[in-house]
Amino acid sequence: MKQLDANFHARARDRLRSRAQDAGLDGLLLLRAPNLAYATGLFLSANERPMGVWLPVDGDPILMLPGLERENAEGTGITDARFYDEFPGDVPAVLWMLDQIGHKSIAIDALDATLLDAARERTMHLDLTDHAMAARTIKEPEEIALIAEAASFADLFLTRLHAAAGDIIAAGGTEADLMADAMAHARGALFSKHKNAFAGTPMGITASVHSGPRAALPHGSVLERVPQPGETLIAGIGASLGGYHAESGVTLIVGEISDEQRRIMTAMAACNDAAVDALANRTTCTQANDAALNALRAADLGDTIRHRIGHGMGLEGHEAPWLAPGDPTPIQTNMIFSNEPGVYRPGLDGYRTINTMIVTQDAVQIPSRFQANTPISARTIAI
Amino acid sequence: MKQLDANFHARARDRLRSRAQDAGLDGLLLLRAPNLAYATGLFLSANERPMGVWLPVDGDPILMLPGLERENAEGTGITDARFYDEFPGDVPAVLWMLDQIGHKSIAIDALDATLLDAARERTMHLDLTDHAMAARTIKEPEEIALIAEAASFADLFLTRLHAAAGDIIAAGGTEADLMADAMAHARGALFSKHKNAFAGTPMGITASVHSGPRAALPHGSVLERVPQPGETLIAGIGASLGGYHAESGVTLIVGEISDEQRRIMTAMAACNDAAVDALANRTTCTQANDAALNALRAADLGDTIRHRIGHGMGLEGHEAPWLAPGDPTPIQTNMIFSNEPGVYRPGLDGYRTINTMIVTQDAVQIPSRFQANTPISARTIAI
Repeated sequence: MKQLDANFHARARDRLRSRAQDAGLDGLLLLRAPNLAYATGLFLSANERPMGVWLPVDGDPILMLPGLERENAEGTGITDARFYDEFPGDVPAVLWMLDQIGHKSIAIDALDATLLDAARERTMHLDLTDHAMAARTIKEPEEIALIAEAASFADLFLTRLHAAAGDIIAAGGTEADLMADAMAHARGALFSKHKNAFAGTPMGITASVHSGPRAALPHGSVLERVPQPGETLIAGIGASLGGYHAESGVTLIVGEISDEQRRIMTAMAACNDAAVDALANRTTCTQANDAALNALRAADLGDTIRHRIGHGMGLEGHEAPWLAPGDPTPIQTNMIFSNEPGVYRPGLDGYRTINTMIVTQDAVQIPSRFQANTPISARTIAI
Repeated sequence: MKQLDANFHARARDRLRSRAQDAGLDGLLLLRAPNLAYATGLFLSANERPMGVWLPVDGDPILMLPGLERENAEGTGITDARFYDEFPGDVPAVLWMLDQIGHKSIAIDALDATLLDAARERTMHLDLTDHAMAARTIKEPEEIALIAEAASFADLFLTRLHAAAGDIIAAGGTEADLMADAMAHARGALFSKHKNAFAGTPMGITASVHSGPRAALPHGSVLERVPQPGETLIAGIGASLGGYHAESGVTLIVGEISDEQRRIMTAMAACNDAAVDALANRTTCTQANDAALNALRAADLGDTIRHRIGHGMGLEGHEAPWLAPGDPTPIQTNMIFSNEPGVYRPGLDGYRTINTMIVTQDAVQIPSRFQANTPISARTIAI
């Protein structure tokens, strides 16, 4: 397995040009970093200096970067590379890019409102749709393979955590200690296996480990806190390989599982399964969210819901489409989503599991395996 | 030393309200994460879910967040906190915020162009100036103290690197090994001294270590490469404490310094000093950039310039104002800037030094001390 090559990105550009043509445009100006990576393979450090690529329906693409990135622009196969001096400069870089493109009918994937009037003056027609994001929602086989492999390293974190947590807690270890141990293990394995073949692309593990009443915070910071017997411990893990993201997560019980904990974990499994079924049945994204969360409501856990069931994943850890209110996108083959049932009881405890779901032609594939391999009765930390 | 308290942020809100009044506005809607942190003390994980605070000239502020962050909204002293359900939702969260504010004359610090028309419909007058960033350019004493303390940990990385690099390279160590060693040292010291008093605020060290021909890449990735005798090694370090950023950086020579290397390093010191002088003389930001880079041009190094001399620092690692072309901001007391002379000779070598500069009432203070404490003749790695 190795990073996506220039051919992949050339094909991505062809798909994007074809979308531009279908939309009656002369081309697409891509400014968002993940769109630039998709179209060129360049993962440049995002800062205040705008970077873009112009993909015309006819003619050659133009890479437009700050002069600072000149050497980093090599190896894309895009021969027309142009550079501006510095940020902020006398003319905003995005307007400089529009001047390079000429007066045309174009779409820009992201634009600050302060530049809208000036951008309209420089274009024949300005479409503010993110056409590249729409293309990116349907993954290619090479992208799916990267995400599936990334998921296995998120799983590896969980496997290690599950195996080592009892001893670490017995020795007085905290959430932060648990995280550091499993992180070193999973990160080490990821880098050792893949570092050489993925030079210059983002690779890593992100993790959160929360226990006890603080597990009821959907977004909390990891603390120097020793998990106590009977508490829940939520581990939510993201992994990236070649710039592509996957997630896996589980809720473990310190000691023995109580009846109430088992009841909640069973309801979450039903919620997870309802999301999978909705994807298999090709509902819309919003319908899938409703169907999944209804499984929690059916178990009298409606009041504990604090977030949507999931989000798209790919070159961004969170990306469209969204399994959430307000996204009518129809579920399609080769879309990839997280599946994150969550139950939060402020002051008491919290639960979240995470799977990565790949919509295949006739089913839903789950590359994150920890939950499937670990029945609820085994999700305990022996103390 | 401890994190900024609720009183600091209440005073920040007063300054911002006063700016809104001076601009003839009813108030400011702040959506950018560093502006939100400045006005509230909240450092929430930035994701696709918009977060904002409304600061009216008259009346109480309103904190507007996704429901997911409910518990994290506590402790700000802002009692009117309102929450929206989820992203994307049926109505974009920013428009929901404008509906909460009512039809008024307001400024928004950042707005996606796709929302501009709808935002104009919901406001009496819409100003797209980032008034909070303008306020943040002038630091308070508490902010300056945090930045100065952060600078000492960037220095600590360099001190360790300078002391340990010879042995590490002798043992076959690479750029990545050098970075890991100094990082563990500086990060350990930072966390051990400050972790308890800075809970919930960003804290950390970022570093890059490049040697040989790759030092000629202003933005390159750190590699498994062993620095060779006679080469330059650039170390550029950022440190943050309580969310506030500082930088320190140096170029070291592996082995003995050649005459040409000494000539270049001397020219860079002159460039550094010219930037300091320009700030002391209260030029504009663009003039300071010109004055500094002229010192490189005077040494026949004009062709090796690849970037501006510096940028503002504070709640963002790079923030306005910019010591660069296109920023006419006058230098004022209590502004803070980086000072980054850089010489890049593609295929050959590269050099960069970094200082943090604080503009005081009658001079320029340099909290990064590594360069001052290490004359050019001592910037070597003994091998």
